[in-house]
Amino acid sequence: MTFDKITLAHGAGGSMSHELMDKIIDPVIGNPALEVFHDGARLSPGGDIAFTTDSYVVNPRFFPGGNIGKLSVCGTVNDLAMTGAEPIGLSLALIIEEGFPVAELQEILHTIKNAADEAGVSIVTGDTKVVGNGSADGLFINTAGVGRIIDGTDIAPSNIRPGMDIIISGTIGDHAATVMASRHGIDIPDSLKSDCAPLNGLASKMLKAVPEIACMRDPTRGGVAATLNELAQQSGVGMLLDEESLPVREETRGVSDILGFDVLELANEGKLLAFCPHERTEELLSVMHGHKYGREACVIGKTIDKAAGEVGLRTALGSIRVVGMPMGAIVPRIC
Amino acid sequence: MTFDKITLAHGAGGSMSHELMDKIIDPVIGNPALEVFHDGARLSPGGDIAFTTDSYVVNPRFFPGGNIGKLSVCGTVNDLAMTGAEPIGLSLALIIEEGFPVAELQEILHTIKNAADEAGVSIVTGDTKVVGNGSADGLFINTAGVGRIIDGTDIAPSNIRPGMDIIISGTIGDHAATVMASRHGIDIPDSLKSDCAPLNGLASKMLKAVPEIACMRDPTRGGVAATLNELAQQSGVGMLLDEESLPVREETRGVSDILGFDVLELANEGKLLAFCPHERTEELLSVMHGHKYGREACVIGKTIDKAAGEVGLRTALGSIRVVGMPMGAIVPRIC
Repeated sequence: MTFDKITLAHGAGGSMSHELMDKIIDPVIGNPALEVFHDGARLSPGGDIAFTTDSYVVNPRFFPGGNIGKLSVCGTVNDLAMTGAEPIGLSLALIIEEGFPVAELQEILHTIKNAADEAGVSIVTGDTKVVGNGSADGLFINTAGVGRIIDGTDIAPSNIRPGMDIIISGTIGDHAATVMASRHGIDIPDSLKSDCAPLNGLASKMLKAVPEIACMRDPTRGGVAATLNELAQQSGVGMLLDEESLPVREETRGVSDILGFDVLELANEGKLLAFCPHERTEELLSVMHGHKYGREACVIGKTIDKAAGEVGLRTALGSIRVVGMPMGAIVPRIC
Repeated sequence: MTFDKITLAHGAGGSMSHELMDKIIDPVIGNPALEVFHDGARLSPGGDIAFTTDSYVVNPRFFPGGNIGKLSVCGTVNDLAMTGAEPIGLSLALIIEEGFPVAELQEILHTIKNAADEAGVSIVTGDTKVVGNGSADGLFINTAGVGRIIDGTDIAPSNIRPGMDIIISGTIGDHAATVMASRHGIDIPDSLKSDCAPLNGLASKMLKAVPEIACMRDPTRGGVAATLNELAQQSGVGMLLDEESLPVREETRGVSDILGFDVLELANEGKLLAFCPHERTEELLSVMHGHKYGREACVIGKTIDKAAGEVGLRTALGSIRVVGMPMGAIVPRIC
């Protein structure tokens, strides 16, 4: 497959995003330090410094449970946390469309401040650009984050081995279901909102209690399906999920059914996946259950010694289906 | 003055940009670590780590001497260099409009790679978002940079004292004149092109030879006028420029006259200003003249013990006029 124009699917986190990376970006700027399949880099010299970036273009900008500002702090803090790092500074770069209401900007800035306070990090540098009316859709935000890797942690896809439990910190798909419902004007109950949250506190508690955790990752764009497929390919290990164990809110299931999505492909913004040696799972879950962002943590599957590099799902009926990398048609501008 | 909508002038680097920062952004997210008036932060813990970010929205994306990709590497490398740091890693975040030509993206990526190679730094982490047709103007790029502060350097506006020479590394205004000429279809000779260049090599050589340099800054948006006004205010020191010493290419002067700009307010992307104790100026200039980006370095003025916090210009006629912070009507989307 070749392509000569960028499409929305190239930004959606699925197989087309990987194609853009593999065929266009990586051949030119790839280098040993660019962890193409990882959400953050370890800097060298100074291998204890983690560095990551994300832009935020979510539509709509406000949704139940958050807004673009909260997302821009949590997303980057979480990427740092998933490399085993505590954040030590965030940057904040705004691209604003001419005519943007100052009152809305102020509300977003307050949310940014609150989210950064909760994560225990400050905005230490920034930039503001303004483009003409019609040259951007309101407001785009980029944050980059620098963190310090927690002493003694070593989490990486290559540490994943068969026989580990796959743990999720809570319910799946709430962020994407909420944003899509807002975008399409679907009436949702107050109980459904984005899970957008900073996970560095939870991740740090987990790593300190159970340093044997092999790998962690937050399943954002492309959801659990994309994240597990990436990790399966990188580790060369097979994974088997148990459909009946997947924690999904009824409201999220409802929105996802209406819009025709697979909950495994829906973005999360306050959830993490962890790979834990089975004998340490009980302790890890007990630590997670004691944290506000891990109360509903549970095992959703395990790594296996066959089907190397693939992800399967044992359905409620007992059959096994392949969980593929999401294709192009997943939701754009979800974060 | 109050305002309820964001205007182009809020992003142009002059007095309106400062107003946005002072009245809207800083009151909410300001903190001791946010160096509001500085282009980069020193991170703590680990005070030897510098961190900076910029978004690039230049229009047009290609211009003589460079394109948005070259700008996105040089701008961020230069911000690091101006804190006295050598870059150790860059992030690259793309916001692409649906339908963007892949061939153009590839050309820009190659330029990014070449500029990063020249600066001796790698792209270590990145992100790609795609927004719908009409939701962005082609391509916006954000880069953030992490650097390590060169041992023994201490450059800061507070180090500026009366009696120092103000040095510029070369001709003024070439970047903005080139971009504006391209935007308006003004025919310019081949000799006029953007000065866009990575300055870390030059800056590092300067700091090693003359560690007494008090402060350095690259005069980008708002030009020499904005940069010197910021530094004058922060240091509380007066500055006096000598009009006859300002190095300005004839072609740049021509474009700037046609468009009605003051060359002191035109953005530069490959120039630096340095404040040097007078007795060290000769050595500093000799070091600069030996570097390809400093061949035309010269003294353009000095710091004085009156007119605290203000910038003046001694004109060719011998009178002195105040050089103010540029107002709103300076050029948008110049970087």
